Amino acid sequence: MRTATYEIGVKNLTKRVAIIGAGPSGMAQLRAFELAQADGRPIPDIVCFEKQADWGGQWNYSWRTGLDQHGEPVHSSMYRNLWSNGPKEALEFADYSFDEHFGRPISSYPPREVLWDYIDGRVQRSDVKKYVRFNTVVRWVEQDSETGMFTVTSEDLEAHRTIVETFDDIIVSTGHFSFPNLPDLAGLDTFPGRLCHAHDFRGAEALEGQDVLLVGSSYSAEDIGVQAHKMGARSVTISYRTAPMGYDWPAGIEEVPIVERFEGSTAHFVDGTSRRFDAVILCTGYLHKYPFLPDDLALDSRNCVYPANLYQGVVWQDNPHVFYLGAQDQWFTFNMFDAQAWFVRDVIDGTLQLPAADERQRDIDAWLERFNAIASPADEIRFQADYIRDLINATDYPMFDLDEVVEIFLAWKHDKQDDILGYRDRTYRSVITGTIAQTHHTSWLRELDDSLTRYLSTPDPEQDGVDQAPLASA
Amino acid sequence: MRTATYEIGVKNLTKRVAIIGAGPSGMAQLRAFELAQADGRPIPDIVCFEKQADWGGQWNYSWRTGLDQHGEPVHSSMYRNLWSNGPKEALEFADYSFDEHFGRPISSYPPREVLWDYIDGRVQRSDVKKYVRFNTVVRWVEQDSETGMFTVTSEDLEAHRTIVETFDDIIVSTGHFSFPNLPDLAGLDTFPGRLCHAHDFRGAEALEGQDVLLVGSSYSAEDIGVQAHKMGARSVTISYRTAPMGYDWPAGIEEVPIVERFEGSTAHFVDGTSRRFDAVILCTGYLHKYPFLPDDLALDSRNCVYPANLYQGVVWQDNPHVFYLGAQDQWFTFNMFDAQAWFVRDVIDGTLQLPAADERQRDIDAWLERFNAIASPADEIRFQADYIRDLINATDYPMFDLDEVVEIFLAWKHDKQDDILGYRDRTYRSVITGTIAQTHHTSWLRELDDSLTRYLSTPDPEQDGVDQAPLASA
Repeated sequence: MRTATYEIGVKNLTKRVAIIGAGPSGMAQLRAFELAQADGRPIPDIVCFEKQADWGGQWNYSWRTGLDQHGEPVHSSMYRNLWSNGPKEALEFADYSFDEHFGRPISSYPPREVLWDYIDGRVQRSDVKKYVRFNTVVRWVEQDSETGMFTVTSEDLEAHRTIVETFDDIIVSTGHFSFPNLPDLAGLDTFPGRLCHAHDFRGAEALEGQDVLLVGSSYSAEDIGVQAHKMGARSVTISYRTAPMGYDWPAGIEEVPIVERFEGSTAHFVDGTSRRFDAVILCTGYLHKYPFLPDDLALDSRNCVYPANLYQGVVWQDNPHVFYLGAQDQWFTFNMFDAQAWFVRDVIDGTLQLPAADERQRDIDAWLERFNAIASPADEIRFQADYIRDLINATDYPMFDLDEVVEIFLAWKHDKQDDILGYRDRTYRSVITGTIAQTHHTSWLRELDDSLTRYLSTPDPEQDGVDQAPLASA
Repeated sequence: MRTATYEIGVKNLTKRVAIIGAGPSGMAQLRAFELAQADGRPIPDIVCFEKQADWGGQWNYSWRTGLDQHGEPVHSSMYRNLWSNGPKEALEFADYSFDEHFGRPISSYPPREVLWDYIDGRVQRSDVKKYVRFNTVVRWVEQDSETGMFTVTSEDLEAHRTIVETFDDIIVSTGHFSFPNLPDLAGLDTFPGRLCHAHDFRGAEALEGQDVLLVGSSYSAEDIGVQAHKMGARSVTISYRTAPMGYDWPAGIEEVPIVERFEGSTAHFVDGTSRRFDAVILCTGYLHKYPFLPDDLALDSRNCVYPANLYQGVVWQDNPHVFYLGAQDQWFTFNMFDAQAWFVRDVIDGTLQLPAADERQRDIDAWLERFNAIASPADEIRFQADYIRDLINATDYPMFDLDEVVEIFLAWKHDKQDDILGYRDRTYRSVITGTIAQTHHTSWLRELDDSLTRYLSTPDPEQDGVDQAPLASA
């Protein structure tokens, strides 16, 4: 077994690093190494394993559900109709603006294909794609107790070939919105209608004319609810366990307490009411699941902004050669992954020296204490902004106005309270470029074509049925 | 690492054997060892790994699709409405008859729950369940090149615990009807209706009033087609690639050539016709997939009655400490798994001495030659009967009238040609007990309650709407 050598400042840094997953986090990691190399810094040998045929993680759309063409769990929970549910100004890369990518202002809430194009665009301009082994799934990661090296066993899904290699460091960037949390609900096995988890939801068109029950009260239920309404569902009922989301829902959407049991097509709720449904979609969240990791390396957490056992949110405390990207619940997304990836890069190449384990633990504990004191969503957003600020301060990732992004999040929450069907028509100012987003040519509620082509087009209001958003900018 | 010891005839046979999967094949293997032990023969240490919460494999029903409560691929392709699509007389255990289990004659085509009860019943009477680790998935199997021992890494899915153990022999009994084959069809990503593979089909009730397209022309398409028809689909269109099944379909079911492309809800067929559909179910078969095995141990085959590289259909030619059960396409099922399990047991405990590799290869080649000459389904059924006869002759599994079972299969095929909606009302004579099956109290087409309770009940014809099958017994 080869021995790890690790010589800072030497061009041939002979470390080998495995990045598992080429979604937005893994792509951020590739970008981080790319920029270091452009600066003349030595970078390790990199292999990025990606089971999908392309990078982009969740931002790829596939009609497949459950298992993919290779019999692997489908990664993406994406649906055809998805548009960003938060303003793009809150996720913009600090080193690659929307203006730079699109060459002109766009709206604040782009559809999926537009966001995929943006994250693809940043890394397409270099040759980092060469590091990615597509259609390759990591089967098992094991650490040699003597050398400390990791043996990574992967499978080339097209060639049906097993590959065994050793690495010095492992970066887990597979995300945690891919493995559905599927609680059992009494009698659900008798429900004869359409039944799936939000992970397998691919579009709301087929819900037209149907009575739809969504179980859950977070983003999936909120967005699938309004999508179903937009596409003509006869009724949308959202069943919450703890508290309703409480938006000013339009007629046709309502929130009710949790289901107690199903009897065939009928759901009985804990408040004693019952109703018949054509379709049930379980919007019951996702699992942290890393089937390729032994239990001592696998993060096991509920979805929260500070999973325990990760120093600076990224370094596995029990084994600082294992890193996680994007393991947090996310207000900030792409720009947080960047800050994390820059930090991980600097730890791996020795630019940053990790403190000793007990000092790391004190840092974790201090953050956990603050985490446990979070009392409101606004607190949580500020918590995450401060976390990112710490990471950026430690690296050369360009600092951006995190406080202003917090304000954007708070305005966004207000907009949703104000108009859950219209908030996507509002616009924000970029903290990176100062550009004010363009009011889109068609309001979200009336736009039935989610494509990049349509989005970037300039439809003729007379001919193309453009519906200018009537709402004021934020 | 412990060294394998292997002393024939000594009570404490210190071999360790891993059985991966506790479906009908794995259960047959447990039964085989159980009977050997009852005969005073030494048996190895056995660990049977089962990722489901109960044994029975495909014969378990779950409302879940895609991924299960632990985020693992759902094993079973079972739907609520499934009744056996072949006569039970063709799959009856030679050592445990339906008469023995139910205490009275039953019909020839029982629903799922009845068949689950039967296979469960045989092994419930002993204590072999103690060998099964439920909710435990095998992650990776690796052979030590020096000792020849296998390291099996598994995960206790409830405790989130990784377990690493060594074994002398590996028995792969995970089946090959669990990982859907999902070809891409042009434009399928634009189809807005309900879309899934047969693996994720859970019942036809929600297809009432719908125009349904089934892609494929084998058992899945045939049975989901008649189920959809039974449950009131407005139309069922079955699209074949090579040749139609050609049954005498009732009005409402028809076969058409393969789809060329989808445009939204419209399927365009290669014959130039097109039609709008509400739902598409891909009945496009399954993959041989063993994600826990390195490529040199993983069977890679199309679905056929003689996958290459398996001596006697069960011994992995390149490594005769690896065994496969039920890897064949199946006319015979439970009784074939038994014959295989008895054979594997006898190889493992040394009762049978394996010939040398070249002799095994000559045997494989001889069977392959005959396999390649198969010209008709009848040939194929006789091929499989002869294969099973060879296995039984080598072991103490009770011989049964394989030729008569071939006749049952041929009659069954004739019955289906004769009446695709009524064949399940016909009855056969058991080759094990001589019992003639009972004509069921309700014809399959009219029976909407698929439960064991209803099946075993004696409904009052006046009160319970019993519909005596009008068809003659075979």
